[in-house]
Amino acid sequence: MVKFYPVKKSRWSQARLGILKTPHGEIETPCLVPVATQAVVKTLTSEEAVAAKCQALIANTYHLHQQPGEGVIKRAGGLHQFMHWDRPLMTDSGGFQVFSLGFGKDLGLNKILKKELPFRVKSGQQPKLLNITEAGVHFTSFRDGKRYFLGPKESIKVQKALGADIIFAFDECPPPHADREYLKESLARTHRWAKECLKLRPTRQMLYGIVQGGSDTSLRRESAQFISALPFNGIGIGGEFGHNKSQMKKTLDTVIAELPAHKPRHLLGVGHLEDIPLIIKAGIDTFDCTVPTHYARHGIAFTSQGRLDMAKSLWYKDKNPLDKKCACFVCRGYRRNYLTHLLRAKEITGLKLLTFHNLFFFNTLIEKIRNNIKRGYV
Amino acid sequence: MVKFYPVKKSRWSQARLGILKTPHGEIETPCLVPVATQAVVKTLTSEEAVAAKCQALIANTYHLHQQPGEGVIKRAGGLHQFMHWDRPLMTDSGGFQVFSLGFGKDLGLNKILKKELPFRVKSGQQPKLLNITEAGVHFTSFRDGKRYFLGPKESIKVQKALGADIIFAFDECPPPHADREYLKESLARTHRWAKECLKLRPTRQMLYGIVQGGSDTSLRRESAQFISALPFNGIGIGGEFGHNKSQMKKTLDTVIAELPAHKPRHLLGVGHLEDIPLIIKAGIDTFDCTVPTHYARHGIAFTSQGRLDMAKSLWYKDKNPLDKKCACFVCRGYRRNYLTHLLRAKEITGLKLLTFHNLFFFNTLIEKIRNNIKRGYV
Repeated sequence: MVKFYPVKKSRWSQARLGILKTPHGEIETPCLVPVATQAVVKTLTSEEAVAAKCQALIANTYHLHQQPGEGVIKRAGGLHQFMHWDRPLMTDSGGFQVFSLGFGKDLGLNKILKKELPFRVKSGQQPKLLNITEAGVHFTSFRDGKRYFLGPKESIKVQKALGADIIFAFDECPPPHADREYLKESLARTHRWAKECLKLRPTRQMLYGIVQGGSDTSLRRESAQFISALPFNGIGIGGEFGHNKSQMKKTLDTVIAELPAHKPRHLLGVGHLEDIPLIIKAGIDTFDCTVPTHYARHGIAFTSQGRLDMAKSLWYKDKNPLDKKCACFVCRGYRRNYLTHLLRAKEITGLKLLTFHNLFFFNTLIEKIRNNIKRGYV
Repeated sequence: MVKFYPVKKSRWSQARLGILKTPHGEIETPCLVPVATQAVVKTLTSEEAVAAKCQALIANTYHLHQQPGEGVIKRAGGLHQFMHWDRPLMTDSGGFQVFSLGFGKDLGLNKILKKELPFRVKSGQQPKLLNITEAGVHFTSFRDGKRYFLGPKESIKVQKALGADIIFAFDECPPPHADREYLKESLARTHRWAKECLKLRPTRQMLYGIVQGGSDTSLRRESAQFISALPFNGIGIGGEFGHNKSQMKKTLDTVIAELPAHKPRHLLGVGHLEDIPLIIKAGIDTFDCTVPTHYARHGIAFTSQGRLDMAKSLWYKDKNPLDKKCACFVCRGYRRNYLTHLLRAKEITGLKLLTFHNLFFFNTLIEKIRNNIKRGYV
């Protein structure tokens, strides 16, 4: 079983140091959990993910259920053996991926990201590609065109078969442009599903409940109280937090004020590098984030000089390492001119080198924050 | 400067052990030289190429001239510094790539590989996309649509700027379906170009002349004598050798009989795994080969059980390592079921793991052949 020990609490903020004990070793928190969507950190080997200081990874229930199927992974001895990763693993519930096919898709993700919300999703409304029922969600897969159904029972069943150390309850991730009535009904559904998941709780895995409620502070408080009162092993916080940093902070503070100190808290899907200090100070222990890996595959490096678009030809003349202050093997051995060449020549190795560096950079940054909490600076 | 020492000659064949000394270390021969077309072994880092036992790599003059351009690489301090590779490097002359745009393209490469040669290329004939002159070849790049010119002077100039340890004279690689008259004229051109390249020979790089002559034994003999008589540092053998293994062996034996023992011999572009023992026994010291890397990117693994198509779903059930007899990190850590999942899920990491294994497998096989020559078994 998994246990969490809060080690130290900051004097200046809600930030806290902790140790999360799992059957596959300990996670020092606060900790970034990089995404291994299809049971692999894209472009890296498991050895490289370790070398890039990754303490834990989160794989994707929705994707692995469709390919190769949880049966293949169970027969392989579970996700750890399958992907040759002997450190802690999480799986998400699949809810986010299913619901991102829904209203988000109807409206267009770009518009949502730009906060252009021309209409409100109302109570009782259904998205085009999903059929949301009280038992779960019917959806058509983009990958193989097949019809699937995922609900609390199915999600837990799949996550049990996958066998990660930490798994999540199935929740509805409501669209950011939902009206209050929709949000309330959705939250009631998420809470019912949370209880159903608990009935099926596995014995050897840690099950986290998920707080939802959109950017509505009172619904968030209600959800935090409801989920905290249930015997989950940890608390996940999902969904949309609001349109700007201060609203995000306010929602997060509201939720965390309601959470018990002895349970670990995981924030699902952090958006940006600059959010990380903010969410750690708010009291988050672990968080998953696609940014370091996703941006790398688009040629963007995170460095002590800021974000660099390494696909630009201006770097051809630059003999410097990617980041002079970074100690990773990419920065010790390779130069900007070469990385740029690899990216422009569409060489896979370029994506891999950037992915490694970005993960190392993020993990080192968070390591520093942990040290600062230890020393009482944060 | 580069030096070659034949260390031991087999009693049973023309096979020989040797040491090729370069400013970037020694190559134990016989040795496979994997291709790093765009200054990278596709999917691998330089560290991984070392770990896969690669002693030397061959980069591509034609590709690097077009992208990023030899100027970028020269300013970076040369190819070794650019690509973070401190072992020996070769560059080809670019001739093969240019001429593969020629008659081969007109006819269709598939037909050539299937030996379906409905017409013969005759003396004086020009391919559609090239203009072959006595000074070199004009061609339109498929990459950027620009018009380029490459001849002996240009090729040596580019190769000097790239700065590999071993470079090759610019030659015409005649189409496999050329008639004898075409072959004779082409060979005369290759020989004139060889002399021109020698006039421009670099001081710190080793320059190899190239023997051509197609599958015509008497032209091959003539070319071997001509190139051997010139003060090249080594001998390359290029072009087509014939339609089957016995004809290939005959052509190769004819050429090698004419070559001086003290000069290293490089065979350009070996086709198959099973050709390797044959060409080593014929007396070849080094040879470049796209097979291990190219097949890996198409999901094919070379193992002690033969070739395996790892993209097939039948491996989903197989918990064995890729090759039980292989000591590479892929075979020590990963299993067939996972490799198959990565390939089918279009994960780059799958291509990389297969590339690493295939190179390790080929290099280990050749290491064994070297040991067998040492012990007098080959």
